[in-house]
Amino acid sequence: MKEVIYLDNAATTALDPQVLEEMLPFMTTHFGNPSSSYSIGRTTRSAVETARRKVAGLLGVKPTTVFFTSGGTESNNTAISSAINDLGCNHVITSPIEHHAVLYTVEHHCKRNSLSSSFVALLPNGEVDYNDLEAQLATQQAAGKKCLVSLMHANNEIGSLLNLKLVGELCQTYNAIFHSDCVQTVGHYPIDLGEYNVHFISAAGHKFHGPKGTGVLYVNEAIKANPLILGGGQERNMRAGTENLYGIVGFAKALEIAVENFDKESSYITSLNTYMKEKLMAAVPDVSFNNPQNSLYTVLSVCFAPNTQTDMLLLKLDMAGVCASGGSACSGDGGSHVIKALNRLANGTTIRFSFSKYTTTADIDKAVETIALELQERS
Amino acid sequence: MKEVIYLDNAATTALDPQVLEEMLPFMTTHFGNPSSSYSIGRTTRSAVETARRKVAGLLGVKPTTVFFTSGGTESNNTAISSAINDLGCNHVITSPIEHHAVLYTVEHHCKRNSLSSSFVALLPNGEVDYNDLEAQLATQQAAGKKCLVSLMHANNEIGSLLNLKLVGELCQTYNAIFHSDCVQTVGHYPIDLGEYNVHFISAAGHKFHGPKGTGVLYVNEAIKANPLILGGGQERNMRAGTENLYGIVGFAKALEIAVENFDKESSYITSLNTYMKEKLMAAVPDVSFNNPQNSLYTVLSVCFAPNTQTDMLLLKLDMAGVCASGGSACSGDGGSHVIKALNRLANGTTIRFSFSKYTTTADIDKAVETIALELQERS
Repeated sequence: MKEVIYLDNAATTALDPQVLEEMLPFMTTHFGNPSSSYSIGRTTRSAVETARRKVAGLLGVKPTTVFFTSGGTESNNTAISSAINDLGCNHVITSPIEHHAVLYTVEHHCKRNSLSSSFVALLPNGEVDYNDLEAQLATQQAAGKKCLVSLMHANNEIGSLLNLKLVGELCQTYNAIFHSDCVQTVGHYPIDLGEYNVHFISAAGHKFHGPKGTGVLYVNEAIKANPLILGGGQERNMRAGTENLYGIVGFAKALEIAVENFDKESSYITSLNTYMKEKLMAAVPDVSFNNPQNSLYTVLSVCFAPNTQTDMLLLKLDMAGVCASGGSACSGDGGSHVIKALNRLANGTTIRFSFSKYTTTADIDKAVETIALELQERS
Repeated sequence: MKEVIYLDNAATTALDPQVLEEMLPFMTTHFGNPSSSYSIGRTTRSAVETARRKVAGLLGVKPTTVFFTSGGTESNNTAISSAINDLGCNHVITSPIEHHAVLYTVEHHCKRNSLSSSFVALLPNGEVDYNDLEAQLATQQAAGKKCLVSLMHANNEIGSLLNLKLVGELCQTYNAIFHSDCVQTVGHYPIDLGEYNVHFISAAGHKFHGPKGTGVLYVNEAIKANPLILGGGQERNMRAGTENLYGIVGFAKALEIAVENFDKESSYITSLNTYMKEKLMAAVPDVSFNNPQNSLYTVLSVCFAPNTQTDMLLLKLDMAGVCASGGSACSGDGGSHVIKALNRLANGTTIRFSFSKYTTTADIDKAVETIALELQERS
């Protein structure tokens, strides 16, 4: 099999072997249902609660505010549903470059409940226009509306970052509920939720070398949210269903490893990002980048000048064993709604490269070499 | 550590080592996002689709009708939500001994949408009174209502079984949507969904030696259901969120193993069930059983005559290393709503013992010995 150069870590990451090691005892010896009251249930219940305390500690909040889910998408759905159905939000402010797990969920609930929604204005670089956000919050408040603001911490395609603290303060001022999809940043940035006036955040284990099928929903203790998935009393009545024991244990371990190594890994990955950017600028004429100045260090969104060669580039990269993506993995073949929203489709072909602690400069050399060769051969 | 006698397999089962073996390559080498279009994404996508074809084949349906979820609870929630919100059901017929994943979900949706619901009458042994079901269906149809019938295939506490074929026919006659929570029977009985007029069934991997955090929702091709969890286009737009790759692969493998060994294992487990029943009758005065005559072979629901000793029996069993349960694991310490609904609380203390292919007669000997000793010592 051809050697694979994996440069799509924003889609998913490889499970860290240390995380797998932590999970395995719960896939063999300790299999009890964490909601059972006897010995082997208590062992696994204790593992779930230890994981919760660990995650809560790493996010700077109380364990009672952390709920395990099946992933970032479920967390986003739960937060938005609860804000609308339980917390009285009747106008939603979001952005056109959110993940579909937010966009489609907002659209669904607004339609069902006949609620209004609006997009915040974006600056040309993809960052949120905070003045517009404040103006919208003020207008809606004056109209007697209660707002849900759902804005992602880092965009998964172009890496633009949100000022969580500032948006939290604005939401506090205008009595709005604030949800942030932090799927691309939990495990990649120090996040001290105690510092922000955020009501809900979503995270997904598989974005930082944890297991797929596991996520976290943080719910600020100041609000009373209700579950999306009803049934048993698991997760203190906030998420029914037998706990994904190994997933939960793995999520916590992955976050622990990530936080322990934030400094080292973020600076390593940042250097890889810069390295690829510089190599591309040297090797490819008319290349440009969609990332704003200060953006998510794991992602490099590259725009190749429009021509027949670049149209086929992603496919050619795949044939050469280089894994990168057009839009997010979740959007399949429909193209990127993010690039479209930013009116950059006409600029050429956008390919997202994203890095992890397992990426090497040799991977990047190989990728840039392939790109240069493809564009050169056919020009 | 004390040797553990695990007799609570209706709560959860140990992962089969062969299932873990099948999952491990996807927790190490093959980690690509199944929704990514490049090589390593195609490998994992192919694994997901192979799993789907396998499960569909084992259930006697087309792969396009099988959707992977995070578990039985999510499947139940999705089915009930969709029947009410998408399929026009405006009256729900269920039973008081359903799992809370059904009862609370029905209650929630009926309340939110101001819909009516009713319980079908149960025979004294806990089986559904089919005459009453038909009478209710006829009455509701005459009143212009469209019914959702949600009845479990096997009760998780007392093991009573539903005649899927008969209920399917009744639902067809009265134009009702039929959902069945098959969490206790998929992997334990041959189920050929092609033979029943059922619209939705739910299954959970961890009930038959598959992984926790994985489930299946079957949706009859005759209906168009919508997702509960919105976002990316995964599962053909029926369940958003990055696929729990290892969970899906594990679910399919566990079901495959279960089906291959149905005959052998069901007869082995049935013999264990009978063995325990007989030993208890010999060792414990005034013992009785809550299971109907023909019931789920994995479960033995035992009623111990009321006295101060039996009140403490579950705790004493735990102290002796014997794992069994009062109600379902999901109901925590609130007691059993099933036993309550059947008016059997006054009869004494109910303890559920449930068996798997890993249970031995020695386990049962130890459990019965402990029970006899506890009741004797203190009488």
